[in-house]
Amino acid sequence: MKNKKANFSEWYTEITKEAQLCDLRYNVKGFVVFMPWSVISMKRMYGIYERELERTGHKPAWFPALIPESNFHKESQHVEGFTPQVFWVEKAGDNKLEERLAMRPTSETAIYQMYSLWIQGKSDLPLKIYHPSQVWRYETKATRPFIRSREFYWIEAHDAFATRKEAEEQVRQDMEMCRNVIWEQFGVPFIFFERPQWDKFPGADATYAADTMMPDGRVLQLPSTHLLGQNFAKAFNVAYLNERGEREYCHQTCYGPAISRIYAAVISIHGDDAGLVLPFELAPIQAVVVPIPQKGKEEEVSRKAEEVVKALCESGIRAEGDFSESTPGFKFNFWEMRGVPFRVEVGLREKESGIYTVVRRDNRKKEQVGESELASFILAEARRMLEDMKRKAQQEFEAAFSRADSLEKLSSELENGKLVASPLCTIEKEGEECAKAIKEKTGGDVRGIRFDKREKAHGACIACGKKAQAVVYIARQY
Amino acid sequence: MKNKKANFSEWYTEITKEAQLCDLRYNVKGFVVFMPWSVISMKRMYGIYERELERTGHKPAWFPALIPESNFHKESQHVEGFTPQVFWVEKAGDNKLEERLAMRPTSETAIYQMYSLWIQGKSDLPLKIYHPSQVWRYETKATRPFIRSREFYWIEAHDAFATRKEAEEQVRQDMEMCRNVIWEQFGVPFIFFERPQWDKFPGADATYAADTMMPDGRVLQLPSTHLLGQNFAKAFNVAYLNERGEREYCHQTCYGPAISRIYAAVISIHGDDAGLVLPFELAPIQAVVVPIPQKGKEEEVSRKAEEVVKALCESGIRAEGDFSESTPGFKFNFWEMRGVPFRVEVGLREKESGIYTVVRRDNRKKEQVGESELASFILAEARRMLEDMKRKAQQEFEAAFSRADSLEKLSSELENGKLVASPLCTIEKEGEECAKAIKEKTGGDVRGIRFDKREKAHGACIACGKKAQAVVYIARQY
Repeated sequence: MKNKKANFSEWYTEITKEAQLCDLRYNVKGFVVFMPWSVISMKRMYGIYERELERTGHKPAWFPALIPESNFHKESQHVEGFTPQVFWVEKAGDNKLEERLAMRPTSETAIYQMYSLWIQGKSDLPLKIYHPSQVWRYETKATRPFIRSREFYWIEAHDAFATRKEAEEQVRQDMEMCRNVIWEQFGVPFIFFERPQWDKFPGADATYAADTMMPDGRVLQLPSTHLLGQNFAKAFNVAYLNERGEREYCHQTCYGPAISRIYAAVISIHGDDAGLVLPFELAPIQAVVVPIPQKGKEEEVSRKAEEVVKALCESGIRAEGDFSESTPGFKFNFWEMRGVPFRVEVGLREKESGIYTVVRRDNRKKEQVGESELASFILAEARRMLEDMKRKAQQEFEAAFSRADSLEKLSSELENGKLVASPLCTIEKEGEECAKAIKEKTGGDVRGIRFDKREKAHGACIACGKKAQAVVYIARQY
Repeated sequence: MKNKKANFSEWYTEITKEAQLCDLRYNVKGFVVFMPWSVISMKRMYGIYERELERTGHKPAWFPALIPESNFHKESQHVEGFTPQVFWVEKAGDNKLEERLAMRPTSETAIYQMYSLWIQGKSDLPLKIYHPSQVWRYETKATRPFIRSREFYWIEAHDAFATRKEAEEQVRQDMEMCRNVIWEQFGVPFIFFERPQWDKFPGADATYAADTMMPDGRVLQLPSTHLLGQNFAKAFNVAYLNERGEREYCHQTCYGPAISRIYAAVISIHGDDAGLVLPFELAPIQAVVVPIPQKGKEEEVSRKAEEVVKALCESGIRAEGDFSESTPGFKFNFWEMRGVPFRVEVGLREKESGIYTVVRRDNRKKEQVGESELASFILAEARRMLEDMKRKAQQEFEAAFSRADSLEKLSSELENGKLVASPLCTIEKEGEECAKAIKEKTGGDVRGIRFDKREKAHGACIACGKKAQAVVYIARQY
């Protein structure tokens, strides 16, 4: 494997191929085939995220993949933001359709016309629904498997409330959900930024997005949650009768965790020069049992290895034995490369002593464990492993933070792969020209202001020199 | 509710609306919004089916939704069968695409080009992959929610083998899977037919399809499994090197359980004149707790009801309390209509005696159950409930079988909603004219010959009068 830190891009390309995560040879540009080793993990990620959405009062629904073009035109910013990216269906069989249909790039315009029918009175609120789905966007930026492709896998959650306060509360709950899932369970650190006005979701009042740091010093956007205000409600007539019998528009939020992209962060941040390091909960195989054959005793060793696999499975561990004809050394490397959290070695000595060698993937630590304790050891060590992976990831993330008060300093910090705090005149519309200048001169993108703490700006805008009103964070981005 | 047996079509329309299973007001013809009450059950159905596929050696993968037109042209029967039903994408943003792309109506032509890359030697076989997905077909037949719409939810499984024998074995395993899931767990009876040559999957050697009987006496096709032989393997170059170093084409099968359609069978077959009757495992809510308020003691009763809900949930039952302001009678009817398997009534008397009334949805039987036994009673009764539902469904299914040796008799039996065994000259290509004549004169469709037993034909073909070689089953179909 390539050195991850020094050659991240090559490392990423190599690991997605060698670990059989995806196949880029599909014959539609920008579309990827996702292979079992990644799909099994992403299905688990879906399950974990959906449980969290249900715990916070969301219910699942399935909306159509095709949306009439006229729906997009109801919200003027939205149509502008999304139609250049749409795959259009104009024909079915030999028939030209009366109106062309968009393959959904996101589903606001499909869903809110239904909300307008479903919401009548206050008892219909809050309405909280999620839709696990794929979306299609004709991306013009360079595609990269899991990170950006023309088809991706995500969950959309669309919530409607009677008051703005509840909608704001939902935004915070969405962030908390990210924390419970992406940080606590997947071990990926991130920070929520309020995006500048020029970079928010088309049609939203405000966009809050989680950014993580990839090993090459570029930020990757994870879920974003959008305070839609009443913009879509007015466009789609999503309203309820209040106590006085008057119609009031709902306050809405939407939230979109892109599972395939979160997976990219998981493998990039935890991986090492030997390959993947998968969190225990997400690993397709949690423990691989490798028989160490001894001449003439192959049968005996294999049988024992099978017993060990069976016992681990019965304890609820996803265990498999590798009984292929490769050498033990080849198998060790192969399963390390694929990120299996634990390896159990079973040879004649182990069979006779009842003491087995267990190797943990992240730190390669070897332990001698008695047969009857194998499962409980692995389950306990798995918890420690996640904590260690989180600690390491958090340290690297924190080390990426930096500051700059001039474009020169900013440039050099970006060159070092930093996420740089700098003063900016404003994140309101008028600041856009400064952001463009920064991008042009340094390659950095203005990610917005921190949501977790209000930082007071000092000094002059790094671009225009006017008094700074905001401390923004700047980084190169995916 | 309408009488299910006498007015099945109206009953179906009413229940899909009243129980909030779907919304037909989406503004693309033939596309349906699936609402939480059905989606929660269908997600469980996916989970159950996927576990079964994994148990039989399948792994999940995700393939793109768009397929280049040229892929379809590689298999001549397949292109003929599917292209009239395709939604075509010719533009993305403002760009005309070089080649138009099909929204997948099924994925053989997307997947097998990858198999051609993935399969090299015998060690790559068998390759068994499933893809949970949606497909799109521009149906010209009348659409009906869950039964037939232009977008539906299914699983595709695509398997490749070294030998025809293994492929045939897979076909039998696919049928067994239907039995383990659709019959054993969902309680829907069916029978597998080998479809006549003129009605097989485009590109297959043979098609085996499960038919069930809907309450209006029309058959509904459930999963089908296809012995593809080497047709697609030759078209897409899916081959391996055998022991002698020679290239051999693989033998393939594909299998497609349509989850949304199986759901239609579940609700239609088990439902009654009061509404849905959901199998315990599929019900979004398995037990609803209804407080019976008594003047001045409302608080006390509600608190107790909440305790009961909590205790049931802790025992792993999906329980909810209905604390809305409707009357108990309204709530009883509402939750019966939505098919919740158990209702627990909690009033002051119950609170004081510690004895609760539990009502089972399918037979409306009331039982008095002590507080500490509530959960274990419900779990045990749930097993009996499924057995009773299966028995009832099987009896109705068996009562639908009939025989006819003349077109007149066939007509009258079809009028009675029967699945009729009749002699036919042949299910080979030459029989198609007879099938057309039967359809024209009686409205019946030839479903094929039984797979589970070879029946010997006697007498003359019901249509052309030639010596019959096959006993076929004929019914009106969805």
